[in-house]
Amino acid sequence: MNVAILGYGVVGSGVAEVISKNADIIKKNSNVSLSLSHILDIRDFENCPFQDIMTKDFYDILNDSKVDIVVETMGGVSPAFEFVSACLKAGKHVVTSNKELVAVKGYELLEIARKKDVNFLFEAAVGGGIPIIRPISRCLAGNRISEVAGILNGTSNFILTKMITENMDFDVALRLAQEKGYAEKDPTADVEGFDALRKICILASLCFGNHVYPNGVYTEGISKITLEDVDFASSCDCVIKLIAKAKKMDDGKISLTVSPCLVKNESMLAGVNGVFNACLVRGDAVGDVVLYGQGAGKLATASAVVGDVIDCACNTKERKFFGWDEGKDDLLADYLDEEISLYVRATVESMENAVAEIAHTLGEVSFLKREKQAFDEIAFLTPAMKERELRKILAKLPLSVISTIRTVDY
Amino acid sequence: MNVAILGYGVVGSGVAEVISKNADIIKKNSNVSLSLSHILDIRDFENCPFQDIMTKDFYDILNDSKVDIVVETMGGVSPAFEFVSACLKAGKHVVTSNKELVAVKGYELLEIARKKDVNFLFEAAVGGGIPIIRPISRCLAGNRISEVAGILNGTSNFILTKMITENMDFDVALRLAQEKGYAEKDPTADVEGFDALRKICILASLCFGNHVYPNGVYTEGISKITLEDVDFASSCDCVIKLIAKAKKMDDGKISLTVSPCLVKNESMLAGVNGVFNACLVRGDAVGDVVLYGQGAGKLATASAVVGDVIDCACNTKERKFFGWDEGKDDLLADYLDEEISLYVRATVESMENAVAEIAHTLGEVSFLKREKQAFDEIAFLTPAMKERELRKILAKLPLSVISTIRTVDY
Repeated sequence: MNVAILGYGVVGSGVAEVISKNADIIKKNSNVSLSLSHILDIRDFENCPFQDIMTKDFYDILNDSKVDIVVETMGGVSPAFEFVSACLKAGKHVVTSNKELVAVKGYELLEIARKKDVNFLFEAAVGGGIPIIRPISRCLAGNRISEVAGILNGTSNFILTKMITENMDFDVALRLAQEKGYAEKDPTADVEGFDALRKICILASLCFGNHVYPNGVYTEGISKITLEDVDFASSCDCVIKLIAKAKKMDDGKISLTVSPCLVKNESMLAGVNGVFNACLVRGDAVGDVVLYGQGAGKLATASAVVGDVIDCACNTKERKFFGWDEGKDDLLADYLDEEISLYVRATVESMENAVAEIAHTLGEVSFLKREKQAFDEIAFLTPAMKERELRKILAKLPLSVISTIRTVDY
Repeated sequence: MNVAILGYGVVGSGVAEVISKNADIIKKNSNVSLSLSHILDIRDFENCPFQDIMTKDFYDILNDSKVDIVVETMGGVSPAFEFVSACLKAGKHVVTSNKELVAVKGYELLEIARKKDVNFLFEAAVGGGIPIIRPISRCLAGNRISEVAGILNGTSNFILTKMITENMDFDVALRLAQEKGYAEKDPTADVEGFDALRKICILASLCFGNHVYPNGVYTEGISKITLEDVDFASSCDCVIKLIAKAKKMDDGKISLTVSPCLVKNESMLAGVNGVFNACLVRGDAVGDVVLYGQGAGKLATASAVVGDVIDCACNTKERKFFGWDEGKDDLLADYLDEEISLYVRATVESMENAVAEIAHTLGEVSFLKREKQAFDEIAFLTPAMKERELRKILAKLPLSVISTIRTVDY
């Protein structure tokens, strides 16, 4: 099987490395022989071990009928979309690690693949090396999935972990992440939740069967989380994690959000630290399943890409049934309709008055304590009710709300 | 696709339930229609919703050419082996949840399946509903796997969790597990590690490519773990877990053990509590991956079986390449050759003398403390060295060793 790679960046070079270094084990595990035929990149690479198969011309790959499988690791929507769709239309299988491409153009590309009877696979687009897409689409195919959620961005999880375990300020932790190469110079996509959003859109599409587009979805990052919040969370045996989640509501709509959440220490998601990722899937038969590992990185992501390439090579006669239907207008619920318990931190003018009013209006409330708590500072966990109602009640209470953070029950 | 089930026990009835209840979602997810054609059981079931397809005669299934896929959920080696091999020889795909069958007869059955060009799948044999077998064999197929390990027995993990979190004695926790239906009347297979052994043998066979038979493998259970050990473990930020592990040694041999181990609290395996299971796989590209969920139970196990049934139904034209080679004589290393750090608890005649001797002989040793420690009680963590050497040194020290527990680095 001849494999071409589009883009010799971090992931692309990892894929080339794994395919060549592990050729023997790939043959033994799967009875397929993968041979690298082309690598496309507009840049020149000195001392690259794949010098003789580098090309700057995409048509070298597209027009070569001996190329069976194309790996796209360029990132971004354009020209990745044009290249991938051209390859699929030419009857080549395509594997990508490009989450933006799948989140924005997934349905369109899956449709082309269906029509041309070839595979379009993207295990690496969510959670790097962690097996997520295939376990959901195959191992859990007998389940009615009600919820999928996860820690899907390693950069923000690294920052939160430093804040929690080393009492580091957000800004300091962000600078450290940048120094270590985990965060970009412009960290917006990571810390404001947009990267996690693309991944949860892919997972929601897969779990619920219609394309969920990231456009216009409620997304909240971690840049406003403070050490005060971290301390209050800790006082009720919780940690703060950036959780991307999609839940099927009773009316069939999907409530999808990306936001910081209080996660109980006993949850498997609470132990996911540093740049690691984890994905939780809740099925009616299987219960909760958690898949954990390195969510990014050269070889981890390459591992997932190569797994997909092997799958393409093993399924040449019969295309894998895989994918989802087109999105639809009223697919998403208003997230404010979801029942949730909120963590609230606020200042008050009269503590006595505020406590009495909160207890009177909200009923069963857990008030939280932290060391060095200011005299006018209050924090509590509300009972679970529709977020819209909760917000209305909060607005009427004698509080100046500083932060509210959602909670999750897993 | 017509599916027959051998054995209408806990798992078999779960499979029947999931296939009939989730027929619509199975069709949507995988484009296959599964139809239950027979259920074999020698018992009579009143009020069973599948009364009209129950049979007591295996040949009703074997001789029916319309049965495409046979699910074996009877347990035990015989007659499961005879039934499964007859079905494979008759050209039917077989899915089993029977870990004993796969651990003892896996290679033989895989060979028959290979020759007859049908699938023999057993995702449910390890870790109940957790996707483990398929992620390893497919998603991680590009990796050279160096180690696979896990908490693979829910009963013993439930008991240890009660000991750790509620300070419950082993005997009390075992009785509780029996009351809750997690442990059998004769709990030997669970608490002495034999159940976990079968599962790690299956995983080792899959990860390293040769059948590893459970016969004669070193297995140590949890029945000798005491609350003193739990306390000392806690004092060095560890918990005690029953770990089944298989590691590829430098000489290509496999070191395979089942024994209690000290696991660092920061490890993902430390957070696996109650009857839950988790499996860790270490690959050269992917790093560490952990797969977590319900390791047993009617519907969770059925979820894995149905996933395999769907996979068979989707791969009728092309048999999935899957399996391993026959075992061989010198496949297993002597586990005493593995480098390891041991936790040691002992009594001493002279504390001063013992501490001096330990420090002198072993070098860097962490001495542990616990509340209510007896005046003659000592506990410490040794440096890592070959277990054989460590045991020799321990035997010469002025100690009466009460317990030794291995440690793991994940």
